[in-house]
Amino acid sequence: MGAGLASALQIGRARGDLDHTVSRMELRTRLDALVTMALHLVGQLMEKARLERATLIVTYSHGQPAQPSTFGHYLAAAIEMLLRDIERLLAARADVDHCPMGAGAMIGTSFDIDREMLAELLGFERPMLNTYGAVAAVDYITAVYSALKLMVLNLGRVAQDLLFWSAFEVGQLYVPNSLVRVNRALAQKRDPVSLEHLRHLASQTCGRCDMVIGALHNTPFTQMSDSESMAQTEGYSAFESAARLLDLMAALVPACRINIERAEMTADAACLTLAELTETLVRETGLSLHQAQSVASATATSVTTAGRTLHSGYEYFARAFERVTGRPPEMNSENYVETVRTERFIARRHLHGGPAAEALEEAFLLYAEKHAELFTTLSIQTSRVIAAQTTLVSIFHTLLADDPEH
Amino acid sequence: MGAGLASALQIGRARGDLDHTVSRMELRTRLDALVTMALHLVGQLMEKARLERATLIVTYSHGQPAQPSTFGHYLAAAIEMLLRDIERLLAARADVDHCPMGAGAMIGTSFDIDREMLAELLGFERPMLNTYGAVAAVDYITAVYSALKLMVLNLGRVAQDLLFWSAFEVGQLYVPNSLVRVNRALAQKRDPVSLEHLRHLASQTCGRCDMVIGALHNTPFTQMSDSESMAQTEGYSAFESAARLLDLMAALVPACRINIERAEMTADAACLTLAELTETLVRETGLSLHQAQSVASATATSVTTAGRTLHSGYEYFARAFERVTGRPPEMNSENYVETVRTERFIARRHLHGGPAAEALEEAFLLYAEKHAELFTTLSIQTSRVIAAQTTLVSIFHTLLADDPEH
Amino acid sequence: MGAGLASALQIGRARGDLDHTVSRMELRTRLDALVTMALHLVGQLMEKARLERATLIVTYSHGQPAQPSTFGHYLAAAIEMLLRDIERLLAARADVDHCPMGAGAMIGTSFDIDREMLAELLGFERPMLNTYGAVAAVDYITAVYSALKLMVLNLGRVAQDLLFWSAFEVGQLYVPNSLVRVNRALAQKRDPVSLEHLRHLASQTCGRCDMVIGALHNTPFTQMSDSESMAQTEGYSAFESAARLLDLMAALVPACRINIERAEMTADAACLTLAELTETLVRETGLSLHQAQSVASATATSVTTAGRTLHSGYEYFARAFERVTGRPPEMNSENYVETVRTERFIARRHLHGGPAAEALEEAFLLYAEKHAELFTTLSIQTSRVIAAQTTLVSIFHTLLADDPEH
Amino acid sequence: MGAGLASALQIGRARGDLDHTVSRMELRTRLDALVTMALHLVGQLMEKARLERATLIVTYSHGQPAQPSTFGHYLAAAIEMLLRDIERLLAARADVDHCPMGAGAMIGTSFDIDREMLAELLGFERPMLNTYGAVAAVDYITAVYSALKLMVLNLGRVAQDLLFWSAFEVGQLYVPNSLVRVNRALAQKRDPVSLEHLRHLASQTCGRCDMVIGALHNTPFTQMSDSESMAQTEGYSAFESAARLLDLMAALVPACRINIERAEMTADAACLTLAELTETLVRETGLSLHQAQSVASATATSVTTAGRTLHSGYEYFARAFERVTGRPPEMNSENYVETVRTERFIARRHLHGGPAAEALEEAFLLYAEKHAELFTTLSIQTSRVIAAQTTLVSIFHTLLADDPEH
Repeated sequence: MGAGLASALQIGRARGDLDHTVSRMELRTRLDALVTMALHLVGQLMEKARLERATLIVTYSHGQPAQPSTFGHYLAAAIEMLLRDIERLLAARADVDHCPMGAGAMIGTSFDIDREMLAELLGFERPMLNTYGAVAAVDYITAVYSALKLMVLNLGRVAQDLLFWSAFEVGQLYVPNSLVRVNRALAQKRDPVSLEHLRHLASQTCGRCDMVIGALHNTPFTQMSDSESMAQTEGYSAFESAARLLDLMAALVPACRINIERAEMTADAACLTLAELTETLVRETGLSLHQAQSVASATATSVTTAGRTLHSGYEYFARAFERVTGRPPEMNSENYVETVRTERFIARRHLHGGPAAEALEEAFLLYAEKHAELFTTLSIQTSRVIAAQTTLVSIFHTLLADDPEH
Repeated sequence: MGAGLASALQIGRARGDLDHTVSRMELRTRLDALVTMALHLVGQLMEKARLERATLIVTYSHGQPAQPSTFGHYLAAAIEMLLRDIERLLAARADVDHCPMGAGAMIGTSFDIDREMLAELLGFERPMLNTYGAVAAVDYITAVYSALKLMVLNLGRVAQDLLFWSAFEVGQLYVPNSLVRVNRALAQKRDPVSLEHLRHLASQTCGRCDMVIGALHNTPFTQMSDSESMAQTEGYSAFESAARLLDLMAALVPACRINIERAEMTADAACLTLAELTETLVRETGLSLHQAQSVASATATSVTTAGRTLHSGYEYFARAFERVTGRPPEMNSENYVETVRTERFIARRHLHGGPAAEALEEAFLLYAEKHAELFTTLSIQTSRVIAAQTTLVSIFHTLLADDPEH
Repeated sequence: MGAGLASALQIGRARGDLDHTVSRMELRTRLDALVTMALHLVGQLMEKARLERATLIVTYSHGQPAQPSTFGHYLAAAIEMLLRDIERLLAARADVDHCPMGAGAMIGTSFDIDREMLAELLGFERPMLNTYGAVAAVDYITAVYSALKLMVLNLGRVAQDLLFWSAFEVGQLYVPNSLVRVNRALAQKRDPVSLEHLRHLASQTCGRCDMVIGALHNTPFTQMSDSESMAQTEGYSAFESAARLLDLMAALVPACRINIERAEMTADAACLTLAELTETLVRETGLSLHQAQSVASATATSVTTAGRTLHSGYEYFARAFERVTGRPPEMNSENYVETVRTERFIARRHLHGGPAAEALEEAFLLYAEKHAELFTTLSIQTSRVIAAQTTLVSIFHTLLADDPEH
Repeated sequence: MGAGLASALQIGRARGDLDHTVSRMELRTRLDALVTMALHLVGQLMEKARLERATLIVTYSHGQPAQPSTFGHYLAAAIEMLLRDIERLLAARADVDHCPMGAGAMIGTSFDIDREMLAELLGFERPMLNTYGAVAAVDYITAVYSALKLMVLNLGRVAQDLLFWSAFEVGQLYVPNSLVRVNRALAQKRDPVSLEHLRHLASQTCGRCDMVIGALHNTPFTQMSDSESMAQTEGYSAFESAARLLDLMAALVPACRINIERAEMTADAACLTLAELTETLVRETGLSLHQAQSVASATATSVTTAGRTLHSGYEYFARAFERVTGRPPEMNSENYVETVRTERFIARRHLHGGPAAEALEEAFLLYAEKHAELFTTLSIQTSRVIAAQTTLVSIFHTLLADDPEH
C-alpha cells in the first residue's frame, strides 16, 4: 500500500490530477470557512429577528410605501433567502468533493493505484470517476463561484433596502454613529457609507466570481493552464470580499434600530392599512370585494387630498361608504380607528408565512431547524477533512519508518 | 373552500404573489422540457459511448497531443459532466417549486387562505414560507439561469474540442456532409459550421442567462417591476437557444466518426504511449521511476529528432537504456513494440474511471443508474404538475356548478 | 468598371467580406437611428433644463440630502454625460465606416478590384485596409456595443435618482398620472413603474450588449461563423431596447415636475445651505475656515437636535458663534436668514459649471454648440450613405442597360 | 491667486471633487504607461512583420485551412487592430482629462475659485464643466475599462490563433524552448503554456474590467462610495494584467518562427491556391466564373480523393477542364504548376490591403505614420502632466515663501 501511495505522489508533481486535487482542497477550505460565516450571519439575523418580531416597519414596493410589517418579518425573509444560498453553496461543495487523484495526466496509470484510498486519505467524499473528466472538467469551479455570486447578489439587494430606509426623508432605519461617516463641515449629515460598502462588496464579489467563470468560457474541455492552480488563486479574492461582506452585515444589522414613530407616521400618511379596511368590510358587512375596494380606495383618496392621515379619516370613510352602498356604515368611528391600526393589520396576518406573532414564531422554529441541519452538514464535511489529515500524517510516519533509507 | 380560492384569484390580478406564481410555473415548464432534452442528450451520448468504447482517439492537453484514449472514454467524461449539470438544473427546479400564492402584495391577507392547498392545486411542492420573501426574493430566477449557464458553458467547451479534432491537419473527427458547409468555389474545404454553431449557441445562451441575472443586480429586495413576468419573458430566450444547442449536439455527436488511422498515426508520431513504456520499465526491469523516465524520454527525443515514430524506435530505446543503466535492455524488439501499442496503453489503464474496457463498462452502469434516477426525479415533478392541473379543473367545474349565477 | 463590380458581387455570395460589409451596413443604419434619438433626447433635456434653470432641488450624496441646486443644473450634468455618450457612439460609428469589400475570403483576389470605388459606392468612408483583418477583426462590433452599453448604464443611473426622488417620503419629483400605475385596491399608491421600466431597459440593454461582446471572447482571430451576419442579428435587440429607453426618457423627463415646497422643506430641515454660512463667515467676519466650520457645524447639530430647521436657528448660531470666538456675531438675524436661503446658496455658486443663472446659461450655450456639432457629424454620415445609394442604383441601371442579355 | 489655491486644497479633504480628481490622475498615469507599452508592442509587431513580409503561412477560416498568405500580412492585420485599440484608449484618456476640482461636494463653492487654473496646474486639459456631473459622473471610469477590455479581447483572439498554429499536427508556428513547458516524463511534448497564459491574461483582464463597470451598474447618479478612490483601486489590477499581456506578447511574437515547409505542405494538400486557378481560367481562357469554378472544384475533389496534392494534380485538372468545356485545356502542365504556386497566389494579390510585397509595403508605411501620430498624441499628454507638476511645485514654494508662519 505504502509504495502505491509513494509512487503516486512521486509521479504527481506538475500533473493534471494533482493540480486539480490541490485546487479542490483549497476551494473546500474556503467554502467551509465561508459557510461557517454565512451560518453565523444567519444566527445573528435570527437573534435580531426575534428581538424585532413586533417592531413595526413600512415595506416598499416599486419604491413606494406598500404595507406595514415587522422588522422581524422582513429579516425572516432575508434569513430564508440566506438559508437557500447556503444550501446552494453546500451543493457546490459536494461538487468539489470528488478526488481527481490517480487520473494522472488524464488517462490514469497502469500502476495499481487505489483511488478510493487516495480520495479518503485526502478527505474527499469519493474519487472523481472518469479520469479524463477529473482533469478536464472545471464545473466544480464554475459551480462554486456561481453559488457564491447568487448569495452576494441577494445580500446586495438587502443592502439597497437598508440604504433607502436610512435616507434622511425616510428615516425608518437608524444606523449607529460607528457605522456612518460624519463630515466635519456638515455635522448633521450622516452618510451610511457602511451600507454603500455592503453594496459595493456585493458588486465586487459578483464581478470577481464572473471573472473566474468567464475565463473558462470557450476554452477546450481538456487539461489546460487556464484552470490550473495559479489561475485559480485569482478566484480566492472573491471569497475574501464575500467574507468581508458577511462580517460587516453580521455586525451591522444587529446594531441598527428601527425608528418606529417614523414607520407609524408613514404608514398612516400613506394609508398602508387600507387592505385591512377592505377585507374587514367584506367579512363583517357583507360588501362584495369590489364594493369594499371602492369604499376603501375613495377613503384613501379623500384623506390624501385633504392632507390628512388614514387614522383620522373616519368622516371620509363614512361618506365613501354611503356613496357606494347607499346606506351609512355599521362601523363606528372607534371600530374604524381600530381597523386601520398597524398592530391589527399585522396581527390579523397570521397566515402561513405572515408577520403575526404566531406565524412568525412557527417560521423561527423552522429556520432554527434548517440552521442546525446545515450546520450538521458543514460539520460532517469539516470533520472528514480533519480525520483524513490525521490518518494521512500517521500513514506518512509509518511510511517513513518503513523506509530503509530513512 | 371554493370561496377561499375564488376570492384569492379575484384579488390576485396584477398582484405580487400572482406574478411570481405565474413566473415560477413558466420556469418549471421550461425547466422540465429542458431537462427532458438534456436527459435525451445523455442517452444519445451513452449509446454513442458504448459503440465507441474501444475507438482510439488522441487526447490533448495544452493544445498538444497528450495520451491515447477511446472516444467512449472521452464521451463518458462529457456524460458525467452533463449528469452533474442536470442535477444542478434539478436543484434549481426545486428552488422554483415553492408557491408564493397567498402572499398577496407582500404581507399576506387576513382572509382565511389555505396556502398549502393553493400550492398543491397549482402543482407546487409546497408554499413559499415568508410572504415578503415570496414576492421580493428573486433567487429562484437567478438560481435557474446560473444552473443553465453552467451547463451550456460546459457543452461549449466540448464543442471547442470537436472543432479542433475536425481541423484538416488534425483530422481525428469526421463530421458528415450534412453538418458541414461546402463552398462551391472550394469543393474540398469542409467547414464544420455546425460545430461553430454549437460554440456560438453556448456563448449566446451564457449571455442571455447573464442578462437576466445582471438585470437583478443592485435592485432592492422588494416587489418591483424588474422581476415581474414581463421582464422575465426576456429570459425564456435562453431556454430556446439552450434547447437548440442540446438538439444539435444530440444529432451531431452520434453522426460523427473517428478517423482511427489518423489517431493512430498521431499517437505514434507524438510518442503518446511513452508513459506505458516508463511504467513497464519500472514494473518489469526494476528501474527507478527516475531512470525509467530518463530512458523513455531520451527514446522519444531521439525518435522525434530522427523524424521517426515511437513504434519504430526500438534501436533508440536500446541505446538510451544502455546509456542510463550501463546494460542492454531485457526488453526485446517485439516486447518493445507491444509495450508502446495504443491498445495496450488503454487496456492497462483499467483503474477506476480509466479507459480500459472493464473500467468503462463499470462506469456505463453507473451512468445508466444515475440517468434513470434523474429521469425519475423529473417524472415525479411533471406528474405532480399534471395531477394538480386535473384536480384544479375538476374543482373549478364544481365551483361553477355551485355558483347560482351560472 | 462595371465588369469589376459585377464579378465582385458574383463571387461575393456567402463570402467573408460580403458578410462583414452587410453587417457594417446594418450597424451603421442602426447607429445613425440611435444617435438621432439620443440627440433628440438631448434636445428635450436641454429644453427642460432651460425651463427648470431656477427650480430648486435637493441633491444627494451617499443617499442623503447634500446640497441645494436646481433641476436645470442636474439636467445639465445629465446632458453633458449624454453628449459624451453620443461622441463615443460616433467614434464607434467611425470604426464601422471601413469597407471590407474586396477582401474576399480573407486574402483578396487577383481580379483588378477597385476597393476605393467599392467602399465609396457602398457609402463607406474608406476601405478597410488589411484584407485579412477586414474579415477576421470584430472590434467594429465590440466597439459599438461597448459604446452603447456605456450610454445606457449612464441613463440607468439617472433613472435610479428619479425613482428615489419620486418616493413618497422624498416627494421631490412628481411623475404624472399617465406614467404611474395606480392599483385599484390602493388608489393613493402611485407606482412609478415607468421609472422602474427605464432602469430595467437600461439593465436589459447592458446585458444584450455584453452578450454580443461575450460571444466573441476566446474565439480565433479568423473568419468564423460566430461573427457572421446571422450571429450579429442577436445584437440588434440591444438597439431596440436602447431605443425604447431613449424614447421613454424623452417623454418622461419633460412631463415630470419638481415639488419645490418639498425640496425647500428638506433643504431647510437637513441644513443643506450650511456651506454657505461657513463660507460667508470666512469671507465677511474673518474667521478661519476651521472656526467657521465649527460654528456652522455646531449650529446644525443644535438645530437638528431641537427638531428645528436651519432657517429658524439664529439663536443656536449666535450661541455657537460666541462659544467658538468668544464674541457675539456681527451677523444679525435677518442677515442670517438671508445667508442660509437656498436661492442665495445657488446664486452665489456662479463659478464655472455651477448652478447660478449666469454659469448655467454659459453652459447651455456650450451644450447647444456641441449638440449642433454632433448633429452635423451625424448628417455628414447619413448623407454619404444616401448619396452612395443613389449613385449605386444609377450605376446598376447603366450596367443593366449595357448587358446584351438584358 | 495663492490664497484661492490654498483654501481650495484645505476644503478639499475627503470631498467629492478631490476624490475624483485623484482618481483621474491615477487613471491617466496608468493609461499613459499602458499606451506606451501598447505602442511598443506595435513597434515589435511592425519589425517582425517586415522581417516576415514574404514568409508563407496558411490562414484559416471556420477552423480549416483557407488560403495562403504571409506572416507579415497576418501581423499587419493584428497591427491595424491594435492601432485602433490604442486610438480607443486615447479617446478614453481624453474623457479622463477633465478636472473636477472646484466642484466641491457637488455644487461648487462661493469662493472665487479659478477652475481653469486648477485644471491647468494639475495637468488636465480643461475643467469638467458641470460641478454636479464632475462628482456624480463615472463614465470616465467605465469608458477607460471598456476600451481596455476591447484591446485585450482582441489580443486574446490572436493568442487563440497562435495556440492553434503551434499544435503538433498543425506545426505552422515554432515557439522557442524558453516559452514552452517541457514535461520531464514526456520530453518530446512541448506545451506552449506561454500562449495559454496570453489567453488567460486576456480573459482575466476582461473580467477585471467588467468588474469595475459592473460595480457601477444600477447605482445612483450621485456622489457615492462606490466610485470613490478606494473602490477604484480594484480596477488597477486590470492594468497590471493587461501590462503583463502586452509585455509577454511583445517578447513572444518576435521570438516565434514560422515552419514554412509545413505551411507549404498544408497549402498544397488542402488545395489552398484553388482560387488563383479559377481566376486565371476566367482571365486567360475566357471561361465564365461558373465554368472556372466547376473545373477548379472538380480538380480539388479528384486530387483530394486520390490522396494527392494540388501541385501534382495536372492530370485531374485536364480531365475536369475537358469535362466542363468539351475541349482540352490551353494551360499546359508547367503553366498549371506555376498557377497553383503559393508565391504566385500571394504575388498576384497586390490589391489594396493584400499580401503582395508592394501592397504590404504601402500598408507598413501607413502603420508607421499612424504609430508616430499616436506616439505624438501620447507625448503631448505626458508632457502636459510633467509641465504642470513643475509649475505646481514652483508655485507651492512661492506660497510657502509668502507664508509669514513659515
